[in-house]
Amino acid sequence: MSGKENEIVKKIRRLSPGSRPGGSSWTAGMGDDAALWRPRAGHHTILTCDWFLEGTHFLRDKHPADAVGWKCLARAVSDIAAMGGETRCFLMSLALPESLAGKWLDAFLRGLRRASRELNCELAGGDTTRRDEVLINLTVIGEIVQGRAVLRSGARVGDGIYVSGTLGDADWGLRMLKQRRGMVRTTDSALRKHLYPRPRLELGQWLATKRFASAMMDLSDGLSTDLPRLCQASGVAATIDGNSLPVSRFAESDKDARKLALHGGDDYELLFTVHPKNEGRLPGKYQGLRLTRIGEITRGRQILLREGTRNTALWPGGWDPFRRT
Amino acid sequence: MSGKENEIVKKIRRLSPGSRPGGSSWTAGMGDDAALWRPRAGHHTILTCDWFLEGTHFLRDKHPADAVGWKCLARAVSDIAAMGGETRCFLMSLALPESLAGKWLDAFLRGLRRASRELNCELAGGDTTRRDEVLINLTVIGEIVQGRAVLRSGARVGDGIYVSGTLGDADWGLRMLKQRRGMVRTTDSALRKHLYPRPRLELGQWLATKRFASAMMDLSDGLSTDLPRLCQASGVAATIDGNSLPVSRFAESDKDARKLALHGGDDYELLFTVHPKNEGRLPGKYQGLRLTRIGEITRGRQILLREGTRNTALWPGGWDPFRRT
Repeated sequence: MSGKENEIVKKIRRLSPGSRPGGSSWTAGMGDDAALWRPRAGHHTILTCDWFLEGTHFLRDKHPADAVGWKCLARAVSDIAAMGGETRCFLMSLALPESLAGKWLDAFLRGLRRASRELNCELAGGDTTRRDEVLINLTVIGEIVQGRAVLRSGARVGDGIYVSGTLGDADWGLRMLKQRRGMVRTTDSALRKHLYPRPRLELGQWLATKRFASAMMDLSDGLSTDLPRLCQASGVAATIDGNSLPVSRFAESDKDARKLALHGGDDYELLFTVHPKNEGRLPGKYQGLRLTRIGEITRGRQILLREGTRNTALWPGGWDPFRRT
Repeated sequence: MSGKENEIVKKIRRLSPGSRPGGSSWTAGMGDDAALWRPRAGHHTILTCDWFLEGTHFLRDKHPADAVGWKCLARAVSDIAAMGGETRCFLMSLALPESLAGKWLDAFLRGLRRASRELNCELAGGDTTRRDEVLINLTVIGEIVQGRAVLRSGARVGDGIYVSGTLGDADWGLRMLKQRRGMVRTTDSALRKHLYPRPRLELGQWLATKRFASAMMDLSDGLSTDLPRLCQASGVAATIDGNSLPVSRFAESDKDARKLALHGGDDYELLFTVHPKNEGRLPGKYQGLRLTRIGEITRGRQILLREGTRNTALWPGGWDPFRRT
């Protein structure tokens, strides 16, 4: 055998004990042409893929490699949570400079392995190549009992709109990170949600199993960008109550807090709608995580923001990679 | 709704009729958080992912966008062929400059759609972002009857080693392409195998179903690089007969032809081994495609090249992205 690529693949494989053939549902893993996986009877397979690119999604001189490893998997897994599914495995495509194949790759794989364990998602295969910048693409495979997946298209007029946790912490963390010089520390608690987001897997599964959520998605690009996507898929509109938003405690003013909550991306909280007949049964918290009613689904096409007695149109102000900033 | 990203996603979705929800085995497609797919009972799922990057795998000023679209899917599908599987669907992660979102993207999607139809592989979802260079990552999902997949690890001492088609045409095409000025034509027959490789899906399925192949992989990086991978997975070695190689008709000399056949990448032919008791039953062609015996599996660790009565070590000379060229 030969080649730097093979060495890197070996390192990745070694750090990922779950990817060995003969594991729970594997008959071939990394090192063959493809991975072979045994799906569960009575389940649908959930498939999602996500870019995580240096310069676009993270900065090599600011983001610790450990956090890059955690976050690339966590945010991809968030799409599984958004359907109410369980994680199974992932494929990793990695391109990196040869100079990062040592310490940087080791730290990256540490973060990735921790995410893999905590999120129950085994590395099943991948593709590795050399590139001047770090490019990552993950495909996550999940499963859900047939007929139980919560889509974006199920929201109906009159449904309440809910979000989990608080909104804006991750964007606030990004703002802090940009202000600091050099690499930030992995232990910086103000940056925790930006560096180490936690996909809401258990909550998503619970909402799907209890059939509380009529529609659901995860908040990756910010409420003002993501909510219109859910509304469009459902053919409805929405009114958001500006005073009810669960804002970040880090914000410097009420105005700032609201702006972060409406437009800040990268929170990976769940956005879901609940039929009025189920709203009374929905608790205010799930496993300590706040569930907040922030508005209701309406007829029409326009997303409105209600502040006191005043309604204004809410335009997307979140992250769009094709909008120049 | 807003955002250039949404527009591009719509264009991708429109050009991919197979990706509509409600298709054969889909309950949600592009536009939701993830794709939902119904696996077949009694089958394993085959998962593979592949980079296709501007500058690394193709040149924007040389390769027609149509060929980029075809090839990115064809080469990923080749990994499904290498297991003996059937294609089902794929996820596409695409990053591109905004300036390419018009004509270039249209031509790219034309090539991709043709590959999608001919290779029976529907677009099921994806992720799109902006980037200065074109970055593509595809995940292909296939299926195979449980227990029928042909792995790299099944080769045994004494097995014959076979390849499909001819070896070296694609590398020869790359050489031609590098010599030409500007964009090459999609109709250039000498470049056909380089621009529009055909994964050997039917052959792979036939070899798996008939249980002819004891081990199999596809030739993506060149015989001298790929064969050691098969041997390592199987714990065996091999001797290749240099005079038996099915060489490219384009090569300028015997020496050149042999070099291309041994080290040229990108052919996407199948490399497989056959137990001696089955060798007599293997036809010389399958659906007009030549099947050539090029050597045999041996004990030990070293790959040997036999030329006349002389054996020399065959070192990997194929494509390794981490070896500086």
